Amino acid sequence: MKKIRIIGNYITQFGELWDRSLESLFEEATFGALNSVLGSKFAKKMVRHEYGTLLPKSRFLPTEIEAVFVANMAGGSFANQEHLNAVVAQMLPHRPPAFRVEAACASGSIALELAELALQSGKYKTVLVVGAEKMTDVSAQTTTKILSGASEYQKEYGSTFPALYALLAQAHMQAFGTSREQLSVVASQNHTHAVSNTKAQFQKEIPAEVVSKSAVIAEPLRLLDCSPVSDGASAVILTTKKSKVFMHKPVIEAVGHAQDTINLAERESLLELLATKLAAQQAYQTAGITPQDIVYAEVHDCFTIAQILATEDLGFFKKGDGGSAIEKGDTTIGGKVIINPSGGLKACGHPVGATGVKQVAFLAELLQSQQLTQKKDKVYALAHNVGGSGATAVVHIVSQTKYMEQS
Amino acid sequence: MKKIRIIGNYITQFGELWDRSLESLFEEATFGALNSVLGSKFAKKMVRHEYGTLLPKSRFLPTEIEAVFVANMAGGSFANQEHLNAVVAQMLPHRPPAFRVEAACASGSIALELAELALQSGKYKTVLVVGAEKMTDVSAQTTTKILSGASEYQKEYGSTFPALYALLAQAHMQAFGTSREQLSVVASQNHTHAVSNTKAQFQKEIPAEVVSKSAVIAEPLRLLDCSPVSDGASAVILTTKKSKVFMHKPVIEAVGHAQDTINLAERESLLELLATKLAAQQAYQTAGITPQDIVYAEVHDCFTIAQILATEDLGFFKKGDGGSAIEKGDTTIGGKVIINPSGGLKACGHPVGATGVKQVAFLAELLQSQQLTQKKDKVYALAHNVGGSGATAVVHIVSQTKYMEQS
Repeated sequence: MKKIRIIGNYITQFGELWDRSLESLFEEATFGALNSVLGSKFAKKMVRHEYGTLLPKSRFLPTEIEAVFVANMAGGSFANQEHLNAVVAQMLPHRPPAFRVEAACASGSIALELAELALQSGKYKTVLVVGAEKMTDVSAQTTTKILSGASEYQKEYGSTFPALYALLAQAHMQAFGTSREQLSVVASQNHTHAVSNTKAQFQKEIPAEVVSKSAVIAEPLRLLDCSPVSDGASAVILTTKKSKVFMHKPVIEAVGHAQDTINLAERESLLELLATKLAAQQAYQTAGITPQDIVYAEVHDCFTIAQILATEDLGFFKKGDGGSAIEKGDTTIGGKVIINPSGGLKACGHPVGATGVKQVAFLAELLQSQQLTQKKDKVYALAHNVGGSGATAVVHIVSQTKYMEQS
Repeated sequence: MKKIRIIGNYITQFGELWDRSLESLFEEATFGALNSVLGSKFAKKMVRHEYGTLLPKSRFLPTEIEAVFVANMAGGSFANQEHLNAVVAQMLPHRPPAFRVEAACASGSIALELAELALQSGKYKTVLVVGAEKMTDVSAQTTTKILSGASEYQKEYGSTFPALYALLAQAHMQAFGTSREQLSVVASQNHTHAVSNTKAQFQKEIPAEVVSKSAVIAEPLRLLDCSPVSDGASAVILTTKKSKVFMHKPVIEAVGHAQDTINLAERESLLELLATKLAAQQAYQTAGITPQDIVYAEVHDCFTIAQILATEDLGFFKKGDGGSAIEKGDTTIGGKVIINPSGGLKACGHPVGATGVKQVAFLAELLQSQQLTQKKDKVYALAHNVGGSGATAVVHIVSQTKYMEQS
């Protein structure tokens, strides 16, 4: 196994970006990530038209990108634009081979996984992974229709995504006594985390009581249990090159990926997402660690109940204890594991194609910002992403080795 | 580089399949390919519900599929179904990790390419690649809108795909004297090839004179210059396992993949598809062969002019000679290279997500059927696929070694 490092990362503002096109989001994330690679200082114009005359200070050229992995769920429906691999490839002066990948809300994670496989094959040494979604140019009704395009089977019964997760919430409440208040704490805590995240769609506190009193969407889920409809993009640059200048960059330690039935009715249990459990097992095994080694985790909280399920299925808490653990403060600063330091899908936002990439980009930034002061020799973080209501789950584990140890 | 063999292949009927859903097409191709692997005889029902009790004769179990690569262009728009990786994964008893890939009309080829990278990484040894498209459930107007979703930039000027290829045809005619009759021979010849292909959408002859007299779509292109709107699916099973029983199976020798600008106006020349040339160069170099070594080629003939361009850009004929070469019979049985033995997109049909997989599946079947009688020790065939009007191009080279040599 080659060591894969995250040498560049970027997240655009998430939100209702009325003045932005899908293409411009891809572009900002792509060039943002390129610019984030150490020492690289170039203007976009120069790259496009005069890249023979880049500033001598640039140590990383866009032409070092050998392949591009593009994540997007529904550009064809939201923005009438498919063929997004070509759209992104032509932003780079040398137009490297590009691939567009989709797995509903897990699109970004699958793009990362394929990029990692491509790097492991040895064909490419440095690749760009960029995910974006532009969701706010259509009506809410159209958005609902597009998003339910990942749930063919349930549609027969008229279910939408909030309704499916409401079923999971009802089951969890009945089996384990998970309370309405605990769901509210999930939302509230993620909003608190988002306060320090300038890219977040909702960079503000929302008290748990306000969540509990918001409008009912699908009993027991209320408006503020739901992640928003968002525009945004994110990118990372991955390399297997063993350059000294990249030695302090975070490493992708492992990926796990599992599938389950699309239809909830065909599953053995509604108290867990089996695909999350299986994907996590694979990832922990490959990384050679246990859930207790994880310091930060970005998890898929499309609805508050999803975060409670995730913290159990990822092994942070015993099955059924997710709600009380969150209420006790075990998932925030000072707790056992910091869940969704970015604010999660709930507060940071959920531009679906971007989310999986953003989770890893955010963790890479967070780990790097702390490498001078971290206490452990090696810190592990986890990214967990789900497509549909659990038919696809992907878990990434990234690590940061202590700065002093390396020099 | 690991040797990748095509051990299973299947193509559904192509056509206007009113009674078929997207899912059922994926299913038929998946189980068709599984059943095509030597010795594997199992009923679908048994696989799904009683796979512990498979017939003892089965030598290949569906559980040997370690990952699935799903190709589809616009299931979200045509069939309101995204997340197709999960749809296909749940057809298999063990629900292996699955990835959906899109690159407009080149989706199938990109899925194959990513499957090959995944196999080269060593993580997986046997994978399924399946492509499908269900295009006939929407109006012709909607189809036009969806397909032009791969051409954002030209849409500004009101261009559709026939109009873009008409520009390329006009340029070729002006520069090289390519004639209206030569375009008609392309269509006519592909229809002749399709007569022996039972899966073809149009399994019938169409004389060149009839093509020349069909309705004008975009001058000089007429109705019978255009590939049809189709439903269909195709699948292949690829392995790197070195089993004796797979020794007579075709080998994927090489892949080339290049990108160009989406917008024709930004290209240096309208007389060629640069991406095709670059992808072909990569593929020939990797395989260590020249265009003269190719015996059969499935090329992207979405419009007749596209086939003329392809035969030049792939190096079979000098630039400008494509039209006269086809007229002289150099591209059919008895000629220099047999182009589109399946009938091509034009006569076999063009369910976009399926096409790239179908090209390789068809060549695999053709090469195997001839291995007992082939004269050369090793026969090479080529598959060429294009996304948009040349923004993505992928070239695969497959080979068949003579049967007697191996035993």
